[in-house]
Amino acid sequence: MKIESVDFFYFSIPEVLDIGDGSQDALLVRVRAGGYEGWGECEAAPLPSIAAFVCPMSHSACKPVMASVLDQPLNDIADIARINRLVRRNSFDLLQADHTLSGIDVALWDLLGKRHNEPVYRLLGYERAYAKTAYASVLFGDTPEETGAKARAIRAAGFRAAKFGWGPFGLGEVTVDEAHVRQAHAGLGDDIAMLIDAGTVWGDDVTAAIARLPVLAECKAGWLEEPFVSGALDAYAALAQAANARSDFRVRLAGGEGTHDAFMARHLIDHGGISFVQIDTGRIGGITTAHEVAQYARPLGVTYVNHTFTTPLALSASLQPFAGIESDVICEYPIDASALAQHFANETLAVDGTGQVHIPDRPGIGMTPNLDAIRPYLVPVEITVKGKLLYRTPEL
Amino acid sequence: MKIESVDFFYFSIPEVLDIGDGSQDALLVRVRAGGYEGWGECEAAPLPSIAAFVCPMSHSACKPVMASVLDQPLNDIADIARINRLVRRNSFDLLQADHTLSGIDVALWDLLGKRHNEPVYRLLGYERAYAKTAYASVLFGDTPEETGAKARAIRAAGFRAAKFGWGPFGLGEVTVDEAHVRQAHAGLGDDIAMLIDAGTVWGDDVTAAIARLPVLAECKAGWLEEPFVSGALDAYAALAQAANARSDFRVRLAGGEGTHDAFMARHLIDHGGISFVQIDTGRIGGITTAHEVAQYARPLGVTYVNHTFTTPLALSASLQPFAGIESDVICEYPIDASALAQHFANETLAVDGTGQVHIPDRPGIGMTPNLDAIRPYLVPVEITVKGKLLYRTPEL
Repeated sequence: MKIESVDFFYFSIPEVLDIGDGSQDALLVRVRAGGYEGWGECEAAPLPSIAAFVCPMSHSACKPVMASVLDQPLNDIADIARINRLVRRNSFDLLQADHTLSGIDVALWDLLGKRHNEPVYRLLGYERAYAKTAYASVLFGDTPEETGAKARAIRAAGFRAAKFGWGPFGLGEVTVDEAHVRQAHAGLGDDIAMLIDAGTVWGDDVTAAIARLPVLAECKAGWLEEPFVSGALDAYAALAQAANARSDFRVRLAGGEGTHDAFMARHLIDHGGISFVQIDTGRIGGITTAHEVAQYARPLGVTYVNHTFTTPLALSASLQPFAGIESDVICEYPIDASALAQHFANETLAVDGTGQVHIPDRPGIGMTPNLDAIRPYLVPVEITVKGKLLYRTPEL
Repeated sequence: MKIESVDFFYFSIPEVLDIGDGSQDALLVRVRAGGYEGWGECEAAPLPSIAAFVCPMSHSACKPVMASVLDQPLNDIADIARINRLVRRNSFDLLQADHTLSGIDVALWDLLGKRHNEPVYRLLGYERAYAKTAYASVLFGDTPEETGAKARAIRAAGFRAAKFGWGPFGLGEVTVDEAHVRQAHAGLGDDIAMLIDAGTVWGDDVTAAIARLPVLAECKAGWLEEPFVSGALDAYAALAQAANARSDFRVRLAGGEGTHDAFMARHLIDHGGISFVQIDTGRIGGITTAHEVAQYARPLGVTYVNHTFTTPLALSASLQPFAGIESDVICEYPIDASALAQHFANETLAVDGTGQVHIPDRPGIGMTPNLDAIRPYLVPVEITVKGKLLYRTPEL
């Protein structure tokens, strides 16, 4: 079969707030081929990602993503890998292309899964999917007390792990951060793993990060995530060294959500000293590239974790690449998502009574968009170049 | 003063060909503040770059570039650095933002240069600008004979160095590449430096690159550029090791044009074993980030070189960051540029009789767009989201 159509749908809640909540909009991709339909999601700015799909060619290495996808043969998983390489090759001067590719790649896997009547993780060669311990992923409260309340609610909901991130953390005094971390720890209790996400707030300032190590060690944080931007390998390495040198408790580092190709993720592992590599299939180039990173990390003793802060559809897509790796035990699970994200899919991906998430045993990624529920959030877009309509939001 | 307006203008020749010629379109940026006007250029896909400027916010780390630029105070060069950091921070999940920022940053430097009546290189702290030896930058011919003819023409034109890249090189048999390199070398003669650009054709395939080392050593190539994609640090390091181990001639590696922040460029230096770091101010984040890389490279003995394959305006912007570093002796100089690029600027940036380029001693980047000449190439664009016009090509 051939790829007959690739359609992008931009959704947004009516009023997007200036907070670290990535579920406020969504970019859904629908691919059709041979009577089958696959769905994927880009975890990316919708408008530039659509523009990267439809834009006119600039030169031979700066082509629209469309040029490497439409009309391509799609018969087996080798075709997905080939299309992935083709996009990278033909669009490597088009920066946004990696994000656009990501949602398309997920949709291609979903489509082939439906055709072969297999979950994507089986197509990836995994015999079975292991349930993952969900960590409830939330933003820090505006005050330490609010953070404490969130922690108690997460405990009450039965989660076995929780991550607090963004919000005020890292922006002000060390003592304020210490109060947030202690409240989070107290609210969760000793038996629930506490993870802390700095959201790249320190840029590449190692000193600022080191100042937070004592409270993280005191509260036995399971990891410190994204102290720095993804490229700050030296800063990551220096902080890892400082953390490992402590005699009380070893705070391990996590990072990688900002990576948009396998090389960047490998550099964080090889040169950044991270213990957990966090990959968003909606950014790194889809399931193909994410799976490559999972395979790279495994023999090096680095734990692969999904990054997901959007919809259940994106969550399932992010779980497939490491579904069959038993030692990769935890997964990110957004619990404060927007109404858009909460109603996004027809199926649910719930946490069971023991805090585990079970990867769907359905064909493809096992999740489909609930079109009636999300249609009210559809954002109409039109892009015209030289009087020619290059993009108009398709019928859904 | 405050940044009052930032306007983007997309130009293109009527028919863009599927060749490695980056001068077929251009994205010009005009910034206005306090009665002054600055010009810059993004070396980027125009439509996605415009979309990255105007798109709706997705969340706190995925804002349109516009949000961090418009209305910002602009009084001295510290403000440019601050705006640069602000864009990276507010838009770090918007992949295309670095390319959009690049042209804006150049325009901000140009504007401040005009205000202070100083060339940008002086604002950067350089006492003077050293003339650079231009290397004529051309695509390989379709046949070895055609490559030879190009080489003879470059010699006749008085250049002291030349670079051949892209086209058929690296795509087929080693013997074909050998013929191209030998023809280039013979056409130039022993006294003119020959540089070879593989245009990332081997991805991260070290074996393919090593197979070309003998002919490059035989013909004393000044460098082998971009054998691999920018992220393939291990492949770069392995090839550098193989090249250094040869007893006949040391082929040095060059790379970096694909980097879109200072970290990526530093990684190529620190972990990739390159001897020349090639930076495009229109991609890496503008003159601010390019200058940072030039300063980083210098004490490490790595030569900084501009990457430019577009207009004279972009060329001058790319020369400023290393204008005052005497030991960085060469510069890229496109000679086969499109009619659009050739007529782009009011001023010329010519090569003198000894093959040298003199960086303009005029305020700012010293180049202004020739509006009458380029207006016929202007590409009208309209972007509408939720019925609201977010972008329409401004009056020029």
